[in-house]
Amino acid sequence: MEVGFLGLGIMGKAISMNLLRNGFKVTVWNRTLSKCDELVAHGATVGGSPAEVIKKCTITIGMLADPAAALSAITSKGGHFLEAPVSGSKQPAETGQLVILSAGEKALYDEAISALNVIGKKAFFLGEVGNGAKMKLVVNMIMGCMMNTFSEGLVLAEKSGLDPRTLLDVLDLGGIANPMFKGKGPTMLQSNYAPAFPLKHQQKDMRLALALGDENAVSMPIAAAANEAFKKARSLGLGDNDFSAVFEVVKDLKRSS
Amino acid sequence: MEVGFLGLGIMGKAISMNLLRNGFKVTVWNRTLSKCDELVAHGATVGGSPAEVIKKCTITIGMLADPAAALSAITSKGGHFLEAPVSGSKQPAETGQLVILSAGEKALYDEAISALNVIGKKAFFLGEVGNGAKMKLVVNMIMGCMMNTFSEGLVLAEKSGLDPRTLLDVLDLGGIANPMFKGKGPTMLQSNYAPAFPLKHQQKDMRLALALGDENAVSMPIAAAANEAFKKARSLGLGDNDFSAVFEVVKDLKRSS
Amino acid sequence: MEVGFLGLGIMGKAISMNLLRNGFKVTVWNRTLSKCDELVAHGATVGGSPAEVIKKCTITIGMLADPAAALSAITSKGGHFLEAPVSGSKQPAETGQLVILSAGEKALYDEAISALNVIGKKAFFLGEVGNGAKMKLVVNMIMGCMMNTFSEGLVLAEKSGLDPRTLLDVLDLGGIANPMFKGKGPTMLQSNYAPAFPLKHQQKDMRLALALGDENAVSMPIAAAANEAFKKARSLGLGDNDFSAVFEVVKDLKRSS
Amino acid sequence: MEVGFLGLGIMGKAISMNLLRNGFKVTVWNRTLSKCDELVAHGATVGGSPAEVIKKCTITIGMLADPAAALSAITSKGGHFLEAPVSGSKQPAETGQLVILSAGEKALYDEAISALNVIGKKAFFLGEVGNGAKMKLVVNMIMGCMMNTFSEGLVLAEKSGLDPRTLLDVLDLGGIANPMFKGKGPTMLQSNYAPAFPLKHQQKDMRLALALGDENAVSMPIAAAANEAFKKARSLGLGDNDFSAVFEVVKDLKRSS
Repeated sequence: MEVGFLGLGIMGKAISMNLLRNGFKVTVWNRTLSKCDELVAHGATVGGSPAEVIKKCTITIGMLADPAAALSAITSKGGHFLEAPVSGSKQPAETGQLVILSAGEKALYDEAISALNVIGKKAFFLGEVGNGAKMKLVVNMIMGCMMNTFSEGLVLAEKSGLDPRTLLDVLDLGGIANPMFKGKGPTMLQSNYAPAFPLKHQQKDMRLALALGDENAVSMPIAAAANEAFKKARSLGLGDNDFSAVFEVVKDLKRSS
Repeated sequence: MEVGFLGLGIMGKAISMNLLRNGFKVTVWNRTLSKCDELVAHGATVGGSPAEVIKKCTITIGMLADPAAALSAITSKGGHFLEAPVSGSKQPAETGQLVILSAGEKALYDEAISALNVIGKKAFFLGEVGNGAKMKLVVNMIMGCMMNTFSEGLVLAEKSGLDPRTLLDVLDLGGIANPMFKGKGPTMLQSNYAPAFPLKHQQKDMRLALALGDENAVSMPIAAAANEAFKKARSLGLGDNDFSAVFEVVKDLKRSS
Repeated sequence: MEVGFLGLGIMGKAISMNLLRNGFKVTVWNRTLSKCDELVAHGATVGGSPAEVIKKCTITIGMLADPAAALSAITSKGGHFLEAPVSGSKQPAETGQLVILSAGEKALYDEAISALNVIGKKAFFLGEVGNGAKMKLVVNMIMGCMMNTFSEGLVLAEKSGLDPRTLLDVLDLGGIANPMFKGKGPTMLQSNYAPAFPLKHQQKDMRLALALGDENAVSMPIAAAANEAFKKARSLGLGDNDFSAVFEVVKDLKRSS
Repeated sequence: MEVGFLGLGIMGKAISMNLLRNGFKVTVWNRTLSKCDELVAHGATVGGSPAEVIKKCTITIGMLADPAAALSAITSKGGHFLEAPVSGSKQPAETGQLVILSAGEKALYDEAISALNVIGKKAFFLGEVGNGAKMKLVVNMIMGCMMNTFSEGLVLAEKSGLDPRTLLDVLDLGGIANPMFKGKGPTMLQSNYAPAFPLKHQQKDMRLALALGDENAVSMPIAAAANEAFKKARSLGLGDNDFSAVFEVVKDLKRSS
């Protein structure tokens, strides 16, 4: 199958490289042409425009910060659309371990499934367009709340005379052990917030999840409290840091009185 | 080594059986004597009183709902004391997979380590007495908050037109996958709250964790919000259900207006 | 001065009657013409369209649920615009006791001041258009939070064995005494939520105040918690009741366990 | 009637002076004797000990930071006890404008009523001992929440481009106008937190109100969120400031991102 790929950012490059490695013919397009070079060296063809790529390929994947232009190209072609936000970052993208939250036209999903199975360890089909984005909001909302409670726990441990590194060890052996605590805990204790997922994006997803809840009259006091902590972090200038920097809001203790 | 064991509830029985299976000589005591029968059938000896057990054995483990009597027996003997709350329930107790949060006298910890290593997959020594209980409060506080956000996510998914079972599948493939979500999610969706950890105990631990935070001037808005949800669940008569019944508080939706 | 008046709902009728009583010449327009009768009986003239009223009068006041049509009439005339949300309901409107939060063109404010002084006990000029609406959001946000804490206090009193009516008396004698507690308390204790300000509008204002806070990175945990309680009330079908019906969310206690 | 008075702090001195002015015979006692001088100059007698005062007088009022000693004197006499926390500070004490929340023995209340009516503008009898303290906790809980939402409103106004002093004016004209907003608002805007009611005492009352709610399974998310803000203020070293210093926690904004 001939697969088109629009947008060669960190994620787009990793995914299209992975498709090439797995034997797909890939035609790429990127606003900045030089980003196509490495892909070409591995066998990709370069398309002259999104419309040209879309016309040529069976399916075209867009991984674009601003998808408006590409979407207009798709619809002007009278094409079919599958929404497919992914869960996972650079490394899972390179190794085909993403989780794909697709929604839209089932026939297109079925047509694309061989490519989706290479891109991700699991591709979900979630029904009508919008459901992919909604699912991602729900997951990120839970993730943001967990990061907040994790931060509160680390601070409570330390202020209570416990070693927070030991808390990490204890957590990792129990029923709430999870990769995020294991991965982020040690860097948080070093106040290292190199952005994997920027705090301002996490806060935006919390806000949107709360708006989704508002629309459906779902009361979410934990999410609401977590959102305010992320807003506080933004107000402290931490928006471009990793979302784990909300830890700074929780630990902001000077002296007890 | 001769190990004494006071208290043969669900956990006590499982742990002492595990010790017997691993070659320890075990002398047990329980207020209701008949509970000792199965242990005796597997080689345990029965002691006449806590004091007798303590006098006879190198180390004596107490697993008691009301430890006051046993503690007075220990201290009247002039003995040494190691606090050791465990993380984990019946099955990990049977298979020696508990996590042991011990604190108190290091020499006693060192003496007991061969037994602790049979009882748990990992025994921590956390310093002065009280630190074991504190660590457990921190862990349970995080767990209770996670259960709340998990509940909010499940309700948000369902009210937004997503299948909450699919949310479980998506969560289980990502960075916040954890045994609790995987284990409790399906039963929660069936409104099955058979108590593994009763909600009233979870709420008590949240309250105590918040009190610990108050003492140390640690602001924990997520824990505070979660505590109020658990209190709401108590007020609805759900205190004896599993703590996952807080889900009922979140999903208590009739109709939108 | 000749004053135009568009929209004769509860508020519009009360205000224009008040203007007539104070000697203003008033030309009214309303979609349903019959609503003009009482005003005409008291000396008002009826205009054929918003545009006609606007053309004829020095200033024209719009009190419209859907102001889009009237605004287009105003702007097509090349007119000047003053935003002027009011604080207060029917009775203050009849007696000229509203609080007017105007913003927009200062020259128009100065021109309209004699009418504004009849309509309200105080007219504020708040600067650029939008500031009137913002000020109203801030006030309503505080009001909604106060209603929540008032509800929590009433429930806490009752569940603790105190007479909540005595709490009302105590509150009314102290430093936080305010007309809302005094006015709403007795009806809330009777579960009487005849809508003066519908809960769904209060919740919308809380949501918008939080969105304003989000835009400006203002963390507002109290407002966020109050908003979730109002959402819970909406989910219970209380949206069309008075906003004091959030009391039902707080007192929703069955039995303790 | 002969009234005894134990404890001549700010409140005790003001109240006993007020009693003297109103024609009561007053016998005072204070640990530091010199504090009695001004009272004696106005006609008071000095007692040698709490027990002596209690023995001599019809009723004895204690206004003591540590009431244990005086209470033991009372009970050793076999006397009757009326709990009577007051609402109000120095100035209302001087002018007999306190609100008195009495509870305990009704006969003693009836006996003391002529003195209570001089001390306060209103004396409540709330039933069994403990109810006075509970009522005070409920009132202070509401007050603490109102201070938080007031702070959030002031910050939201300012960050949204509104003049917070204008917000004070608008609030003072509407349905939520109250003496606390009017009194504290201007000083808060000057970051003046001279302690009328210290923040650490407010936070203690919030904690106790939440504990009272916990005991009775009353869920109070607003109070819980407010308590965490007061704790944050304590952690920032603001405990000895006026409780309005929680404003500092809300406005702690550096830059938006």
